[in-house]
Amino acid sequence: MLKLYYSPGACAMGSHIALEEAGADYVLEKIDLAKGEQKRPEYLAINPNGVTPALATPQGIITQNVAILAYVAQTHPHAQLADLDDPFAFGRLQAFNAWLTSALHPAIGKVVFSRPPLEGAARDAAVEAALAKYDLAEHHMLVGPWALGEDHSLTDGYLMVFTRWGRQAGLLDKARFPKLNAHLDLVQSRPAVQRVLHMEGLQPI
Amino acid sequence: MLKLYYSPGACAMGSHIALEEAGADYVLEKIDLAKGEQKRPEYLAINPNGVTPALATPQGIITQNVAILAYVAQTHPHAQLADLDDPFAFGRLQAFNAWLTSALHPAIGKVVFSRPPLEGAARDAAVEAALAKYDLAEHHMLVGPWALGEDHSLTDGYLMVFTRWGRQAGLLDKARFPKLNAHLDLVQSRPAVQRVLHMEGLQPI
Repeated sequence: MLKLYYSPGACAMGSHIALEEAGADYVLEKIDLAKGEQKRPEYLAINPNGVTPALATPQGIITQNVAILAYVAQTHPHAQLADLDDPFAFGRLQAFNAWLTSALHPAIGKVVFSRPPLEGAARDAAVEAALAKYDLAEHHMLVGPWALGEDHSLTDGYLMVFTRWGRQAGLLDKARFPKLNAHLDLVQSRPAVQRVLHMEGLQPI
Repeated sequence: MLKLYYSPGACAMGSHIALEEAGADYVLEKIDLAKGEQKRPEYLAINPNGVTPALATPQGIITQNVAILAYVAQTHPHAQLADLDDPFAFGRLQAFNAWLTSALHPAIGKVVFSRPPLEGAARDAAVEAALAKYDLAEHHMLVGPWALGEDHSLTDGYLMVFTRWGRQAGLLDKARFPKLNAHLDLVQSRPAVQRVLHMEGLQPI
């Protein structure tokens, strides 16, 4: 039995969707980032970095969406969430995921989660930086209709987390980002994704 | 034949070390970040993100150290650079690599690569944030003697890139960070790492 430590609507949703798409046997434990629960000693004993997600497995804890996504794919091969036996295809998938973790997540995260909220020129600069990442995703990363091309993969649910944040922040203009918007709608139409949104107390947007 | 696009001493050294440790058949192409070569159209055609590393493979380009490291391990299994057949062990390795990419790299990178250089309170805050990440590495991430425990893996060469930056910036105090310093010395003693440093025009420090 797996246990995912998550916060509703936060980046752990990428791992949550992977577990649901895989048909994995798992339970959830909510760590409310808005209440600072990720800094409590009980959670720091699980993930000293004080962030979500963390996945408790029978062998121990795995952190980081990039690692959890590959773990879920590897342990649920029948779900075909990643092309594990083709190093190049797996490399492309991992490159996309690592880009989401290290580039898109911090860029849009700065816009939507800075406390106190950014204002004025600081917010304008953060928005411009986030839009530059969405431009990259729109024109270079997202192949379409799915993130990596013709086949759904676990990159889709992970990308969706950050396009949801962008749409919620009013940054995902449909004329400027037609592919990203179509992708977000497509991913949100998946039954597994709708179950995840419901479990996290959220709606498709 | 593989081709690695790198900049001397920059984070692509993690991928460079992996290629050398694997005994891979590869060539290097230098993209000098200090000269802004990563923003030239010829390089943007290879990696639209305008960063190094990028690895040209017979099938196409793979970017992101996290992805390249796993690709090198998967295509050179005899080198035993990662425990690919154990999803939990591979997950731990990938979690460490993803943490390096998304947490330690930006924290120490802000200290050493901000242009214009940070000064005063801004530099103090960046140094404090980087030291907090080194504390996490010292006390929670680095198992010792190697990053993941008793066995060398491709995480070692990647971690070393960022502990080198820390030592160069004078942040890696030996009393505060004994494990990280011992690890840096150990990794720099490896013949493959010494070859990489030489190829990049650098010395052990």
